[in-house]
Amino acid sequence: MRIAFQGEPGAYSEAAAIEHFGAEIETLPCESFDALFAAVASQHADFGMAPIENSLAGSIHQNYDLLARHELHIVGEHVLRVEHCLIGAPETTLNDIRLVISHPQALAQCDQFIRAHGWKREVVYDTAGSVKMLRASGARDTAAIASARAAQVYAMQILQRNVEDNPQNYTRFLALARGPVEPTPPCKTSIAFTLRNAPGALFKALSVFALRDIDLTKVESRPLPGTPWDYIFYVDFASSAHVERGKRALDNLSEITTTLRVFGSYPRAK
Amino acid sequence: MRIAFQGEPGAYSEAAAIEHFGAEIETLPCESFDALFAAVASQHADFGMAPIENSLAGSIHQNYDLLARHELHIVGEHVLRVEHCLIGAPETTLNDIRLVISHPQALAQCDQFIRAHGWKREVVYDTAGSVKMLRASGARDTAAIASARAAQVYAMQILQRNVEDNPQNYTRFLALARGPVEPTPPCKTSIAFTLRNAPGALFKALSVFALRDIDLTKVESRPLPGTPWDYIFYVDFASSAHVERGKRALDNLSEITTTLRVFGSYPRAK
Repeated sequence: MRIAFQGEPGAYSEAAAIEHFGAEIETLPCESFDALFAAVASQHADFGMAPIENSLAGSIHQNYDLLARHELHIVGEHVLRVEHCLIGAPETTLNDIRLVISHPQALAQCDQFIRAHGWKREVVYDTAGSVKMLRASGARDTAAIASARAAQVYAMQILQRNVEDNPQNYTRFLALARGPVEPTPPCKTSIAFTLRNAPGALFKALSVFALRDIDLTKVESRPLPGTPWDYIFYVDFASSAHVERGKRALDNLSEITTTLRVFGSYPRAK
Repeated sequence: MRIAFQGEPGAYSEAAAIEHFGAEIETLPCESFDALFAAVASQHADFGMAPIENSLAGSIHQNYDLLARHELHIVGEHVLRVEHCLIGAPETTLNDIRLVISHPQALAQCDQFIRAHGWKREVVYDTAGSVKMLRASGARDTAAIASARAAQVYAMQILQRNVEDNPQNYTRFLALARGPVEPTPPCKTSIAFTLRNAPGALFKALSVFALRDIDLTKVESRPLPGTPWDYIFYVDFASSAHVERGKRALDNLSEITTTLRVFGSYPRAK
């Protein structure tokens, strides 16, 4: 089974794919999210693993746009606790370090830790990529910030675990496939829709779930790319499009929306 | 009048502050969003100008967290069209360029443009900072991507305007102050609230606006930092907390919410 992910080998996305699908999978690193979606659509991979929201940084709108552009189905979700590790060459000690390199977001999420040590920073494209670069340079005065898996992939040393300032750092990933699944409960369905711009339109749309006691696990409005003052709504609800209650809610919703897209029903992450 | 913003001189935030408050203001560059909020709270600045959402990248949750931690009030909003410029030293021409430097998000937003020219890329902490660095290095084979204002601030040359792949790139900024304002219509109010985790809770919360024909311009749920499976809701509605209709809606809402915070009522951006 081959799973496409975005980033260098050792990326958090690869760790999520392995946690979700198991250690025996083959992973396919992709340069961009576009390439990830294309790899699944073109059968170069069986599944894709794409981050959709982070508890600190919010939704990854680019992947919502790609869901809309492609015909892939969400078939699963996985929540990964993001644990940043300080990683150095095998003989490096904490005292040797003068410089820390990583993706700007990872550096920002470890700001207090880096500041307390008085280290310099340098930005790099990718967390796992920073370990790869460090491995290639062999520098002893430099450490990278990335996943524990990145240290393993590049045979480097974890100098310290959990160097993030805020431990409540979770990323939710979606497993994507060319065909849908019919999940057994507890499950979730992810949809996107647009509404006429009228007061109460969203209220009416949400009523189709409230009247059926269907819980919403996500609601987000976003200026519509292309027409910034119209909104697209992203909703996740705790039912399936393959059961009567969920089917009726979606039917009812389609009477109210101007566009409606169902991205898939899938088992809910624990 | 002194306005605090995050970033180097020439940042998009500084451009937004000048568009919003006028060219005669004094601007105060801050290293971080934390420092921006602290500058206003401690009276080092009269106002702060903080980005809250971008039409391509979504909400800037860090600034929602800072709104919650501080007692500042939203007193205005400003929507800035993000127009990326390719900037070089005064004598540089497009043909000299081999390398483009900027913040990773700006490089990503100009991906097609950079790719079409076959230039290399290097990431830097900040868009305006990339122009500052280029100015210091004097390199002729390098260009930076930043705002037109950054070119002006560092006396550099705009080689090409609007090099972004997607022109629908808007950032919404909030003007922050120590005290509230009482805006005249059309206005907006920004609030955050939490709910008991029960089906239909959000529907009930939104009913207080729908029943009064108050339009919602933003609705977003987000896993609560600290307790990732509870949600905080961000809502902007088209009325004021200082008029009867808005006041009653908020009163009614407080019967339903477990926590409710009003960040401020302010004139709506055109």
